[in-house]
Amino acid sequence: MNVVGIVFVGAGNLATNLAKALYRKGYRIAQVYSRTEEAARTLAETVEADYTTRLEGLQAGASLYIVSLNDAAFAELLPEIVAGREKGLWVHTAGSIPMNVWEGYVKRYGVLYPMQTFSKQCEVNFQQIPFFIEASDRKDAEYLKSIASTLSNKVYEVDSEQRQGLHLAAVFTCNFVNHLYALGADLLKKYNLSFDMMLPLIDETARKVHELSPKEAQTGPAVRHDENVINNHLEILAGEPKMQEIYRLLSESIHDA
Amino acid sequence: MNVVGIVFVGAGNLATNLAKALYRKGYRIAQVYSRTEEAARTLAETVEADYTTRLEGLQAGASLYIVSLNDAAFAELLPEIVAGREKGLWVHTAGSIPMNVWEGYVKRYGVLYPMQTFSKQCEVNFQQIPFFIEASDRKDAEYLKSIASTLSNKVYEVDSEQRQGLHLAAVFTCNFVNHLYALGADLLKKYNLSFDMMLPLIDETARKVHELSPKEAQTGPAVRHDENVINNHLEILAGEPKMQEIYRLLSESIHDA
Repeated sequence: MNVVGIVFVGAGNLATNLAKALYRKGYRIAQVYSRTEEAARTLAETVEADYTTRLEGLQAGASLYIVSLNDAAFAELLPEIVAGREKGLWVHTAGSIPMNVWEGYVKRYGVLYPMQTFSKQCEVNFQQIPFFIEASDRKDAEYLKSIASTLSNKVYEVDSEQRQGLHLAAVFTCNFVNHLYALGADLLKKYNLSFDMMLPLIDETARKVHELSPKEAQTGPAVRHDENVINNHLEILAGEPKMQEIYRLLSESIHDA
Repeated sequence: MNVVGIVFVGAGNLATNLAKALYRKGYRIAQVYSRTEEAARTLAETVEADYTTRLEGLQAGASLYIVSLNDAAFAELLPEIVAGREKGLWVHTAGSIPMNVWEGYVKRYGVLYPMQTFSKQCEVNFQQIPFFIEASDRKDAEYLKSIASTLSNKVYEVDSEQRQGLHLAAVFTCNFVNHLYALGADLLKKYNLSFDMMLPLIDETARKVHELSPKEAQTGPAVRHDENVINNHLEILAGEPKMQEIYRLLSESIHDA
């Protein structure tokens, strides 16, 4: 039985945001799979799709299967996910997984990696999100590009090695950056100050690298070699050995850059 | 001889941005001091001020002296800076230096700390920059607040300890964040990819913490405990021991948070 539409395997942050965006652009979302019934049902209802919590319940013959699971689950479940549906076009959405993970399991495959930080509670504007595409076959690459282009102005074809580099760079510039925001928030709480006071600085720090390279934009005690301030900060952090270590290491790294 | 106007001691990134912003709001900048003639002259010309490269050439009787030097130079030069000008109102602009550094040198003193990352090449919009004020005397505190309020909507009185906390938090959320951008840029270069591809992610990461707390906003392999990805990334970074160490430490810290 053939289904016109897209099947989502996974209903996490990325899948949720991507499915909703595609649905709004007129794509039919045929089915959503998640191990967790609530996650599957919530997303399925939003995008008027069926849902299943069992991999053997996945529909055959969909136009496109988008697999968006965490890397460990994906590696483990891959044979079960595709079983009986080997003729479909299969893509995953992970920056970190090479395309050839599909090899030997299915014939038509690829990657559709939207590089962004997704949270279910926070709707993102897809227009500015870069999509990185890879496919086993030229026609499927063009099909994936056309899908991505309905959502975003920034669609690129890259190979698996480049995508891995992008993903690693994204961990530094997004996940680690956000954690530094979190450490800043913890500090402010200790001084009875609101994290909101930090937002203009956070915004300007991000805005600045649109104009200057990050190296040119660097300011602060470490790049000025201001040892008075650095030593004073290390002292304040004496009760927080992990933050102190982060402070020391990043200051050294700025110094060496 | 009394001078109506503001004297800037220092012509670095912060002094340059602050002097230009005050000048544009109608304040008279009487004089600019910098050890470096070019820096002194460049800023002085922009804000129609006199300039000097010798501390003994600093005018007496100004309405306000704003000292914006790096912390080490400030500590060393303080006696010379104020000599013969002890009757003025003196402020410094450093997050890291307590107000009582002035004690015993001058009678009226305080702090005017605009918390932002300043580069000479990059004009900032002061309206959103939080100013943190402290003064030895209520009247002077109100005067400093009125000056800051002509530039910004966000003017707060905080004590020296709070300001130190703000400054330390700013090192994490701005200086260290920018360095992570720089490390991301280095990585992308190795993969022949443009740093511009990272900007939407950088912007969204900053935007997100306007809506969610940084802890709620955290995404990525470390918070998912995705060891496959983490180990893979550590392997890619094997040739970059310092980046690898930063990766390991920040991932652990996210994990513990």
